[in-house]
Amino acid sequence: MDMDQKEKQKEQSSSPIYVHNPHLDALKDDILYHFSLGTGSHNLPAMFGDVKFVCVGGSPWRMKSFTEFIAAELAMEDPKSEYPNICAGTDRYAMYKVGPVLSVSHGMGIPSIAIMLHELIKLLHHARCTDVTIIRIGTSGGIGLEPGTVVVTKQSVDATFQPKFEQVILGKTVVRSTDLDQSLAQELLQCSKGLNQFETVIGNTMCTLDFYEGQARLDGAFCSYTEADKQEYLLKAKEAEVCNIEMESSVFAAMCKLSGLRAAVVCVTLLDRLKGDQLSSSHEVLNNYQLRPQILVGSYIKQQLKAKAENR
Amino acid sequence: MDMDQKEKQKEQSSSPIYVHNPHLDALKDDILYHFSLGTGSHNLPAMFGDVKFVCVGGSPWRMKSFTEFIAAELAMEDPKSEYPNICAGTDRYAMYKVGPVLSVSHGMGIPSIAIMLHELIKLLHHARCTDVTIIRIGTSGGIGLEPGTVVVTKQSVDATFQPKFEQVILGKTVVRSTDLDQSLAQELLQCSKGLNQFETVIGNTMCTLDFYEGQARLDGAFCSYTEADKQEYLLKAKEAEVCNIEMESSVFAAMCKLSGLRAAVVCVTLLDRLKGDQLSSSHEVLNNYQLRPQILVGSYIKQQLKAKAENR
Repeated sequence: MDMDQKEKQKEQSSSPIYVHNPHLDALKDDILYHFSLGTGSHNLPAMFGDVKFVCVGGSPWRMKSFTEFIAAELAMEDPKSEYPNICAGTDRYAMYKVGPVLSVSHGMGIPSIAIMLHELIKLLHHARCTDVTIIRIGTSGGIGLEPGTVVVTKQSVDATFQPKFEQVILGKTVVRSTDLDQSLAQELLQCSKGLNQFETVIGNTMCTLDFYEGQARLDGAFCSYTEADKQEYLLKAKEAEVCNIEMESSVFAAMCKLSGLRAAVVCVTLLDRLKGDQLSSSHEVLNNYQLRPQILVGSYIKQQLKAKAENR
Repeated sequence: MDMDQKEKQKEQSSSPIYVHNPHLDALKDDILYHFSLGTGSHNLPAMFGDVKFVCVGGSPWRMKSFTEFIAAELAMEDPKSEYPNICAGTDRYAMYKVGPVLSVSHGMGIPSIAIMLHELIKLLHHARCTDVTIIRIGTSGGIGLEPGTVVVTKQSVDATFQPKFEQVILGKTVVRSTDLDQSLAQELLQCSKGLNQFETVIGNTMCTLDFYEGQARLDGAFCSYTEADKQEYLLKAKEAEVCNIEMESSVFAAMCKLSGLRAAVVCVTLLDRLKGDQLSSSHEVLNNYQLRPQILVGSYIKQQLKAKAENR
């Protein structure tokens, strides 16, 4: 096989990022407003063309610390060097890059991560990236699990335990699938077994629109139900194989599936919701828990890049 | 009327902040996790007891700049002094205080502002605040208005133009009213007329769960409808007296109403959505627009505090 054939095969087997929007071609410049980036103002292929992994999480600080962690893990760049925030022109999101790894914050809740994903998917499309894996690393409430357990999401379900995301378009509700890549979930579980540093399980994740009443907490400003009502609801969730509850996985799964991104959700549980609502662990213990998804995903990325380099 | 009677009348006429949660009394400490504050770790009445106005907005930077603006406007403290972020222990939200004015960021979207409001309402309750007015200052897309127009919300409506907010509790949908204080809206409109610096109108505000498909934009990563479909939808919104579109007003109105907070939403329109989706104005012009809600609300607070001081 000569070089041309090789290149051709590579192109055929590589999977691009799909935007599904015929109107984009008509735009002179595409302004990614909440990133403070754009096709007219930035050379997106030069800036992002080599991206193979995107890690997203709620907090800007955590995504910066993940960047430093992954830099050390990959030993690609000086981990002590300063990683500039690529989205410094806005405080809506923060974005950092180390080699082929992009780290982006998404704030809290479905609307916030949806805005970020629309612009990220367009960014990867404009940059002509291929074969991108995207992983959400986050925190969550657990159901019947020891605090500190890491949950890799099998399926993201809504507050009625159905695996769907409802997107309102022109005032009408469209139902989208929340399927995630099962092979990626298994690879992450295997990777965690290899690490052997903390408990990791695969299970369903419930994604809610609210942290207090929406997750049956008893400690919000409003609460119209009893402790018994709460327990009944959470036990029903457990019967539906829900291991943890967070606020972004459903739209994340739906949008990644639509755009052809290989996607996973890896969240640590900070508490067992069957036993309480408020975080009673020390600051130190909670910080240690929050590192676990980073450690697992960092290790996975390192493993993948190593395997790729050996197959070259 | 002697002093005791006066005090008594004042107490009777003062309106407290209502939490509706019988479980809160049973908590030893209430940890306001996303603020990094708590009843056990902080003296909330001493820190916040004098708060009479709360201004909230999406961006942490904007709420910091509003704090500096209001400090200069009220001439209460040195506007050049550094205002510390009261929530420095977390990057979920930022909070600043100048005299009786609290300024808090809420991120983007209903879930993000809902978490903030649960904790803010509990904070004001724990601090035993009374007669608090809360105003959301923000940016929005306009419908048929000159960019830069300020809209004071009459009623917040959903994507089907209904004045309601759907809260999911234990997997079941509860419908809540999105009524705002009409007298406060009128006072703000009068205040803007007095200022005479920019156009201000009272109208309905559509609150959506998504910025792209949810607001009929043609420039997201996905778009399954035509320009004609978009125009038809936005014109239907206009017929329902929708002046602008944003992503937080419905849950803001619903939660403030439940807790007895006098509430208003004041947003500037950055573009006319009937004419386009992307922001074409210069950075300078957009910055000028974004100051308008701050100028109006700052002027209103100054007026109110002056009137109160004179009536003392």
